[in-house]
Amino acid sequence: MKIVCIGSGNVASHMAGAFKLKGHDLLQVWSRSVANAAELADTVGASPISSLEALDRDADIYLIAVKDDAIASVAQALIGVQGLVLHTSGSTSIAELSRLDNYGVLYPLQTFSKTKAMDFEGVPLCIEAKDAALLQRLKSIAGEVSRVVYEVDSEQRKVLHLAAVFACNFVNHLYNLSEQLLMDNQLSFDMLRPLIMETAIKVQDENPAKVQTGPAVRDDKQTISKHIEMLHSQPHLQEIYQTLSKSIKKSH
Amino acid sequence: MKIVCIGSGNVASHMAGAFKLKGHDLLQVWSRSVANAAELADTVGASPISSLEALDRDADIYLIAVKDDAIASVAQALIGVQGLVLHTSGSTSIAELSRLDNYGVLYPLQTFSKTKAMDFEGVPLCIEAKDAALLQRLKSIAGEVSRVVYEVDSEQRKVLHLAAVFACNFVNHLYNLSEQLLMDNQLSFDMLRPLIMETAIKVQDENPAKVQTGPAVRDDKQTISKHIEMLHSQPHLQEIYQTLSKSIKKSH
Repeated sequence: MKIVCIGSGNVASHMAGAFKLKGHDLLQVWSRSVANAAELADTVGASPISSLEALDRDADIYLIAVKDDAIASVAQALIGVQGLVLHTSGSTSIAELSRLDNYGVLYPLQTFSKTKAMDFEGVPLCIEAKDAALLQRLKSIAGEVSRVVYEVDSEQRKVLHLAAVFACNFVNHLYNLSEQLLMDNQLSFDMLRPLIMETAIKVQDENPAKVQTGPAVRDDKQTISKHIEMLHSQPHLQEIYQTLSKSIKKSH
Repeated sequence: MKIVCIGSGNVASHMAGAFKLKGHDLLQVWSRSVANAAELADTVGASPISSLEALDRDADIYLIAVKDDAIASVAQALIGVQGLVLHTSGSTSIAELSRLDNYGVLYPLQTFSKTKAMDFEGVPLCIEAKDAALLQRLKSIAGEVSRVVYEVDSEQRKVLHLAAVFACNFVNHLYNLSEQLLMDNQLSFDMLRPLIMETAIKVQDENPAKVQTGPAVRDDKQTISKHIEMLHSQPHLQEIYQTLSKSIKKSH
């Protein structure tokens, strides 16, 4: 298949790389910045472009991996192409592409780093398409690059995106706050890394509610009040501590 | 060394197992419940006891792995023994053991499951002792069962314990909330597991602040308000979403 990649960020890089690896032909990489386009284009043997007018009109697939608020203008530029146009956004409805002839969604439920290699075959891909025939085609396309393909409609995809904010973005921020606490006391974040790893491993085959530990779930008021006291100079950490402890008690 | 294990929970089980594996002699396992004592005692070839008066007075090491509020009464029962008495608690000062002759702390900074095997050699052990000579001895004892040994005083250990609440207990609760969101929409938690894993892997060699992603760090007000709206029927999730998003903005 001839593929055009619109975007050059983390999602674009990993997706373009995954299709290239399966022997597909990356025609072009578009980015507003030609330098960014060139950087990714070089690695997948594509031509870098920075103008939407320069988009090849005869590709089989157009992967849109740009910021959510730029999807509409990219879709506008693709009106009339016969290739399958796919956006990759968790929080954008498929309806944003409805003026195109053949369209769908290919949302990777994963966090990507530009610098870090990753086994794309384990990345859950959530697919949705204009109609049943295109959905079948998209299922086979997604199945080429990943073992884990889910059919998910736009409403469910929004929920997945929201859940991912809790399970990834907020979780990473808690890692960050724990690192701050250690640094303020001349302790290395290395000390916590094995615990962070094990906490994630534990829920790979268990239900998180079942493995909840800590002072809040055992209603250990003494430890909770010691912790609140230790955070007296950081009221925003106290607020987080209290909000999450209250929520843990509510859930158990 | 002859070791007595006081407690039969997750920490006790993994520690007793680790010392047994290195060829040490587990004399006794104490638990208030003789059935619990017997269960662990059987796996390490020790005698189960359920009375503190039955404790062997001639062991080399006494590992105290009981609930924080039970440490004082166990310490009381051990007054007069010459062996090294170690508690394993993150939030308890070494001073709780000060009426003993030889004492210290061996705090494993890890989350344990009873059912799940674990490489104890990778568990960070935080040690503290009554005096410098005992600290050297404890360092060598800890080094037998783990590659990762840190000298940490009681104040620092309290900070580690607090940081672990953020990085483990609160993180697991966020996993739990994300699972609830999925279940409410007939979606499987399996879909999020690879993301959870990768989020933890990312910070194994990166600083969490550097890999923060999501709507809050890029100040994407539109997505944030969509998410808040999606949570309208769950005000406690709205509160968590807003508190953590505000904290992410504050940190970046």
